[in-house]
Amino acid sequence: MPDYQAPLRDLRFVMDEMLDYPAHYARLPGGEEATPDVVAAILEEGARFAREVLLPLNQSGDQEGCLLEGGEVKAPKGFKEAYQQYVEGGWPSLAAEPAHGGQGLPHSLAMVLSEMICATNLAWGMYPGLSHGAADALRHHGTEEQQATYLTKLVEGVWTGTMCLTEPHCGTDLGLIKTRAVPTADGAYEITGTKIFISAGEHDLAENIVHLVLAKLPDAPEGSKGISLFVVPKFMPDAGGNPGERNGVACGSLEHKMGIHGNATCVMNFDAARGFLVGPPNKGLACMFTMMNAARLGVGIQGLGLTEASFQNALAYARDRLQMRALSGPQAPEKPADPIIVHPDVRRMLLTQKAFAEGGRMLVLYTAQMLDVVEHGQDSAERERAETLLSLLTPIVKAFLTEVGFEATNEGVQVFGGHGFIQEWGMEQLVRDSRITRLYEGTTGIQALDLLGRKVLMSQGESLKVFTKEIHKFCKGEEGNADMAEFVAPLAKLNAEWGELTMGIGMKAMKDREEVGAASVDYLMYSGYVTLAYLFARAAKQAQQAMAGGSDEAAFYQAKVKTARFYFQRLLPRTRAHAQCIQAGAEPLMALSAEEFGLGFEI
Amino acid sequence: MPDYQAPLRDLRFVMDEMLDYPAHYARLPGGEEATPDVVAAILEEGARFAREVLLPLNQSGDQEGCLLEGGEVKAPKGFKEAYQQYVEGGWPSLAAEPAHGGQGLPHSLAMVLSEMICATNLAWGMYPGLSHGAADALRHHGTEEQQATYLTKLVEGVWTGTMCLTEPHCGTDLGLIKTRAVPTADGAYEITGTKIFISAGEHDLAENIVHLVLAKLPDAPEGSKGISLFVVPKFMPDAGGNPGERNGVACGSLEHKMGIHGNATCVMNFDAARGFLVGPPNKGLACMFTMMNAARLGVGIQGLGLTEASFQNALAYARDRLQMRALSGPQAPEKPADPIIVHPDVRRMLLTQKAFAEGGRMLVLYTAQMLDVVEHGQDSAERERAETLLSLLTPIVKAFLTEVGFEATNEGVQVFGGHGFIQEWGMEQLVRDSRITRLYEGTTGIQALDLLGRKVLMSQGESLKVFTKEIHKFCKGEEGNADMAEFVAPLAKLNAEWGELTMGIGMKAMKDREEVGAASVDYLMYSGYVTLAYLFARAAKQAQQAMAGGSDEAAFYQAKVKTARFYFQRLLPRTRAHAQCIQAGAEPLMALSAEEFGLGFEI
Repeated sequence: MPDYQAPLRDLRFVMDEMLDYPAHYARLPGGEEATPDVVAAILEEGARFAREVLLPLNQSGDQEGCLLEGGEVKAPKGFKEAYQQYVEGGWPSLAAEPAHGGQGLPHSLAMVLSEMICATNLAWGMYPGLSHGAADALRHHGTEEQQATYLTKLVEGVWTGTMCLTEPHCGTDLGLIKTRAVPTADGAYEITGTKIFISAGEHDLAENIVHLVLAKLPDAPEGSKGISLFVVPKFMPDAGGNPGERNGVACGSLEHKMGIHGNATCVMNFDAARGFLVGPPNKGLACMFTMMNAARLGVGIQGLGLTEASFQNALAYARDRLQMRALSGPQAPEKPADPIIVHPDVRRMLLTQKAFAEGGRMLVLYTAQMLDVVEHGQDSAERERAETLLSLLTPIVKAFLTEVGFEATNEGVQVFGGHGFIQEWGMEQLVRDSRITRLYEGTTGIQALDLLGRKVLMSQGESLKVFTKEIHKFCKGEEGNADMAEFVAPLAKLNAEWGELTMGIGMKAMKDREEVGAASVDYLMYSGYVTLAYLFARAAKQAQQAMAGGSDEAAFYQAKVKTARFYFQRLLPRTRAHAQCIQAGAEPLMALSAEEFGLGFEI
Repeated sequence: MPDYQAPLRDLRFVMDEMLDYPAHYARLPGGEEATPDVVAAILEEGARFAREVLLPLNQSGDQEGCLLEGGEVKAPKGFKEAYQQYVEGGWPSLAAEPAHGGQGLPHSLAMVLSEMICATNLAWGMYPGLSHGAADALRHHGTEEQQATYLTKLVEGVWTGTMCLTEPHCGTDLGLIKTRAVPTADGAYEITGTKIFISAGEHDLAENIVHLVLAKLPDAPEGSKGISLFVVPKFMPDAGGNPGERNGVACGSLEHKMGIHGNATCVMNFDAARGFLVGPPNKGLACMFTMMNAARLGVGIQGLGLTEASFQNALAYARDRLQMRALSGPQAPEKPADPIIVHPDVRRMLLTQKAFAEGGRMLVLYTAQMLDVVEHGQDSAERERAETLLSLLTPIVKAFLTEVGFEATNEGVQVFGGHGFIQEWGMEQLVRDSRITRLYEGTTGIQALDLLGRKVLMSQGESLKVFTKEIHKFCKGEEGNADMAEFVAPLAKLNAEWGELTMGIGMKAMKDREEVGAASVDYLMYSGYVTLAYLFARAAKQAQQAMAGGSDEAAFYQAKVKTARFYFQRLLPRTRAHAQCIQAGAEPLMALSAEEFGLGFEI
């Protein structure tokens, strides 16, 4: 069975040493309670919960799946009990506002714990995972009464939440939804329609489920301007706030999926279900984006968690499995063959995983600081800057970390050879589970359009400049530092190129809007690689400083510098391909007619 | 349910127009019967069999899987009947020698049919698929008696074959095998040991199974020099050549796998099973490579077939699914949204699939001609040249087509968005099925070492030169052809760089053998991209000529040129990343100690 240890040492490096989280928390209202000791204790306890409670249920949950019987969904064995422990441990309320019963700790801390949950049991993590988005929507857009009724229960964790957006004929294009909301005499609404792909739409982990549902009011404007958001509970709360009468919403069927079998992905039928408007009428899409942005960061963290899980197990296997001799001569002559970690190509795969795990962790924690500042920052200029960076980096976190996460989990299978394809070893499950992360909460293509179109080009490149200026400043600061030249020289070059490529697309897009879509995914991947290069350069500097200061953990810092070097020499060259593809423009993509695509096989 | 139409028009283009198969077959002994009419009839009949018989069993076979009961394995419903039709149709004997009951048609023709089988039902295809390798081993190394007893049955298809190589502790490193062969008084052997991952090791499709087994004789030399090959039937043939007494070989269990659920992947226990030596004692590894090379080409074709299957279904979905408007304005204003094929990023994914399908098909058919010449060619110089090219291209066919096949099937899922993750649509099955192709018959890493180490560097680059000279000649021939400049200029440059990179690795490897392993996978991928560039350039030329000649299929040829252009502009840039990674050398991979890999999470 796969094992997992939370990467506490690496987290300490990124949080305490590189990004100075202690100072960050000290400045944050509410953060002052997140002292280094408290943080360390929380992370250790979270690590224990993930490893001892969630991990043992991961393979069994995958094999067992969920069961729909008489309208009730049973999650796999042990899921409910694990969720009870989660609630009893106070985990759901960690980063929620004290006003709603939360502990008021910084969001970044919850994100770190989320990595551990995703690494050990993604399917389980999707039950509480959706509650955050629902809670965010209610916190920002709900009435006081809605907050008192639903939000406190979500924060406490005794109820869970869902996001009901997708319908059979539309996912990305929510302007097409058909679900209707008809006002009732008492100011509520009757919601009728079918939603699909609803994660944790129905289950037996919590006593009630709070659905956040997009629907159209009568006479709503056409398209995405006519969407409203509603809260629709599974059980109507009674006078005491406890689950009362059953509402008209039910799970029609469970999807059979490639992965995350332990999570109930439901078709939800709303049949004149009683619901309540959240936020202003016809402004549901904006409210939805509140949920969506939190969810997108969350999915990026899923990519990171699965990368780390796959890496740790591939590493253990590579140290243990004996096969062939090193080309340069036996490394373990006393054994019948060398452990496969001696082979350079196995190392290439392991280092790819390791670099994406450590790079992804830096990216998440860097972005998490921005989120903390956006949520709690006192200085408005600082908050505005953080908002800009957060909004720029969110699609990168989501799409880049899930794309490379899928690659990394596949490298894990590859290290295991044929055994990687066998369920028993657990490596193929990580691939299947990670496959969804490139799709849900907006595919990679959608994230890429968000990044390039909405975030970068719509701001005339200003949002990008906020980030590239920071990188530029870092590079300038290291000029003349010979130890850093191997990182700073290529980084500075890429940073300048990033701006040039952006400008190039912007110019072309003025003539032809399709140029944006044609460049978008390559642009996103390019951006991800440069962002990680910046963070790895900072990590290398931090590690060099620690070694110069005579640390007694020289091996750890040495490994960090070597990993950064691997990243720069063996992963960063991919920017060359992406840059060329960006520059190739839209013409090679748009040239074929829809018919011409099929002429090789259609008669 | 997914659909499939054999790409007959594209096959005709590659076979008849580009590679002049009619002339190739006319020159081949035995090939003269493969007249264009006969070939067309066979391909059409094969297309029908694949679509009408195999395709409907693909999803049900995946969901049902195989069942082991009382030592007997039942394949999914319908598999046995489909196999009977296959045998009755004479398909197994198509390319076998008339001396063994075969029809003596060229091997290349069987490979084309194999693409159709893999595209429609890979799990089913693995039952007859392994017979080819077993038959090859017996044809080349078996005694006349063994050929009469076993080979004719394999050719007829009433018996199937297996390749029993892997053991729990060794796959790549067969020198470590523990299975023993003890001579008996009558000149036979008793085989004892456990083999794992045996595809079609036990099933109910055929009346007998012929296992080709690697084992060690008593006092065999250590390691890979002490391996011998044995034929071990499931049922001992009786005096009439029919299945008689049960032999001491049985399926111990079935593996639970990520994909190809319909195929029985068996643990096979040999308990003093009666077997017969094939080829000389201790020369089993060489005999095994006879099976292996055929199998490797076969796996590359699996990658191709799955690519085409995924492409066709993604294309149909992209034309049908309405979502969002084109950025440049509505393309189907009469509909509620545009079909997603209008979006450039969807086109990028479809074209990636299309280019890998068409490029892979050209590579397979180019290589297949070499195989035909090696098997049947009359001119010894021509045969030697074909042998060189075949041996150079085999690891590229195997590893490159499976790596890009996995990418292509994943693009298919991505085009479907969330629906791609749902089993019902069939797209995720193609991903799961294709995942094994990167692993079995030698992982991508092993193919890469074979290409760079054994094929290229061990011949001092001579084998590569045979191919790069051909490419050089093609480029020279197009000098001054302005219509071809967009293809020929980058191709010529890459072709020269290919040699330089090879030389660079060779020089470094003289000092440090690990440089070979460090460069190998990037070298293989680089080689694959350049090889496809050569073939796409030839395809573009062919298409341009056809249009210049006033063809009434201008749209087909136009699409071919546009696909070639997409390949050059949007896929070939990946060579830039691979070239840089090759040049980065071994140092970044070898720097970390085995301990240093784990310092982020190990305490």
